[in-house]
Amino acid sequence: MSEKRVFVFNPGPAALPLPVLQQTQEEMLNFRGTGMSILEVSHRSQEFEEVLNSAVERIKRLLGLDERFHVLFMQGGASLQFAMIPMNCADNKKPVAYVDTGYWATRAIKEAQNIVDDVAVVASSKDKNYIYIPKNIVLEKDFSYLHITANNTIKGTQWWKFPETGNIPLVADMSSDIFSRVFDPNPFGIIYAGAQKNAGPAGVTIAIVREDMLERVPQNLPTMLKYSTFVESNSLYNTPPCFAVYVVELVTRWLEETIGGIAKMEEINNKKARLIYDYIDSQDFYKNPVQPEDRSWMNVIFTLPSLELESSFIKEATQEGLIGLKGHRSVGGCRASLYNAVTLEAVEVLVDFMKEFVRRNG
Amino acid sequence: MSEKRVFVFNPGPAALPLPVLQQTQEEMLNFRGTGMSILEVSHRSQEFEEVLNSAVERIKRLLGLDERFHVLFMQGGASLQFAMIPMNCADNKKPVAYVDTGYWATRAIKEAQNIVDDVAVVASSKDKNYIYIPKNIVLEKDFSYLHITANNTIKGTQWWKFPETGNIPLVADMSSDIFSRVFDPNPFGIIYAGAQKNAGPAGVTIAIVREDMLERVPQNLPTMLKYSTFVESNSLYNTPPCFAVYVVELVTRWLEETIGGIAKMEEINNKKARLIYDYIDSQDFYKNPVQPEDRSWMNVIFTLPSLELESSFIKEATQEGLIGLKGHRSVGGCRASLYNAVTLEAVEVLVDFMKEFVRRNG
Repeated sequence: MSEKRVFVFNPGPAALPLPVLQQTQEEMLNFRGTGMSILEVSHRSQEFEEVLNSAVERIKRLLGLDERFHVLFMQGGASLQFAMIPMNCADNKKPVAYVDTGYWATRAIKEAQNIVDDVAVVASSKDKNYIYIPKNIVLEKDFSYLHITANNTIKGTQWWKFPETGNIPLVADMSSDIFSRVFDPNPFGIIYAGAQKNAGPAGVTIAIVREDMLERVPQNLPTMLKYSTFVESNSLYNTPPCFAVYVVELVTRWLEETIGGIAKMEEINNKKARLIYDYIDSQDFYKNPVQPEDRSWMNVIFTLPSLELESSFIKEATQEGLIGLKGHRSVGGCRASLYNAVTLEAVEVLVDFMKEFVRRNG
Repeated sequence: MSEKRVFVFNPGPAALPLPVLQQTQEEMLNFRGTGMSILEVSHRSQEFEEVLNSAVERIKRLLGLDERFHVLFMQGGASLQFAMIPMNCADNKKPVAYVDTGYWATRAIKEAQNIVDDVAVVASSKDKNYIYIPKNIVLEKDFSYLHITANNTIKGTQWWKFPETGNIPLVADMSSDIFSRVFDPNPFGIIYAGAQKNAGPAGVTIAIVREDMLERVPQNLPTMLKYSTFVESNSLYNTPPCFAVYVVELVTRWLEETIGGIAKMEEINNKKARLIYDYIDSQDFYKNPVQPEDRSWMNVIFTLPSLELESSFIKEATQEGLIGLKGHRSVGGCRASLYNAVTLEAVEVLVDFMKEFVRRNG
């Protein structure tokens, strides 16, 4: 096993497309004829600016973003965005609104409560341990924004119809489902995503900021905590995480040129998700607790009849080269993360392994 | 030239040791027998925690840090530290003190002024365009800390004797000279360094925080902006920039096992610096404006008799595979950055080229 590649179902950092890894490897000592590694190239060089600008353009094309949207490369992960959103976007005394869909959404809410006085949790699925996505959300006040977590990696839920908020900007953490499916970006004031699930390696955060949101940025914020700093400098106020941006460019190139865009990616992701959910629904050894219409295509959670069986399942899967199937430490159980770079073949191998495991242990 | 490696004198991102790049390349598709790339490995895995802990231990050994010092891996570069230092370390109403040695020091001061009311610039070399390091600094009040920029990449100066501050903690930006020379870490409350010059690739910031500084951290700061968050989680509160930490581990391993520690590295850096400064002092075509006792070993700045000659120098050097010799856009001129990974051979080739250029143009 030490000689061959495994099937990676990690929740993040996660699988990357093999051709992306191969190109990274090939160019490591000599980046496109410069005689330098991409790790050594100046962030002020033409070569690097081409990489950065190409990544921006590809992201705009993939998501269908018009000229109002700025694509930024930041650091600190979604967790820093949890603070930056209320710092930058709480619109002069208007309260901010959040939907609580568990763990990461809850963390975003806690961070906002530390920064602004009036944080309204306008909907929550806590009553049923977050196994569903709240529907028919009505906003009764004029909020600064409504924050949602588009896909919930730990609870295995995903928003399939975003709330209708009229003039109130949506703000979304899309760390775990950006680039995985087609959606209309126009209602979103801010979309942010740690890259390490669907977009690249850990170490860079993509933030997509709509022009009108910049008017809210308080002038006295620290320079590195203002979205406007990144907009004005094309993410080059200081040294960006160059290597991570470079890999994001390769991933978005792969999405455009090899996969053929987000609609095609969505088809593949649909096939992958159907394969495993259909199997889970066809038997009663493995169980998925999520309300069917809210199931995540990115993170499929399931339990086995006992903790002992779960433990053997994960152990044997690992021996077979199926990696990362343990559920989050906060919930236990099993979880298969099926991000874009996880192939249909990998999911077929996983489902075959699940069937085989039942035959031996069911 | 597109087939072979060049000599990299970039100011940052900068040269990395060739064996480090080679190992990164070798392991890119299969990190130490896991069958995954380091880009795909979970930050919660034993494999990654070993990398992170090894990097911490190596940094502690290299710098001679005792158990009071915490080694943290953060994001956002020195520029985010400029804000975090006053946010975390301004000790209950005591003013904060800074020395202004140009550009980056000035930026750190501006950021502090935005955050705390009382910022004292206790010394400055602005009067002579920052070509020297202020001496005999006397602190007449009880300050929260004294902040210095240990090496000034743009002005080409370096602190060779740190200020004596008694009980007042020193805080230092060592982005451009960490690991380059031996120093006593004990007077330092905080040492921070963007990795992309002497420690690794862009995308990770090393922060070394002395235990007593943690008592000052205000509880109500955003989670990701508190040093205590990183201390309590061993830099794993959220997903760290795994790849950049991995390369830092390889660089510190190279420093310990190949170079033989910081004292040996300092000897080599001394030889490199002497070679070029001795040559500059032996003629009058190239000129270095810095007061000799304050010259940086890391960034050697020099001018030629005219802008035209500087422009040809940089152009011809680039053609010869000597990359990154242009001075910072704010000051012009030339600059050779001689960080740890720049070999003595590279400096010999550079000095030979400088001599040859004089023969043709002097």
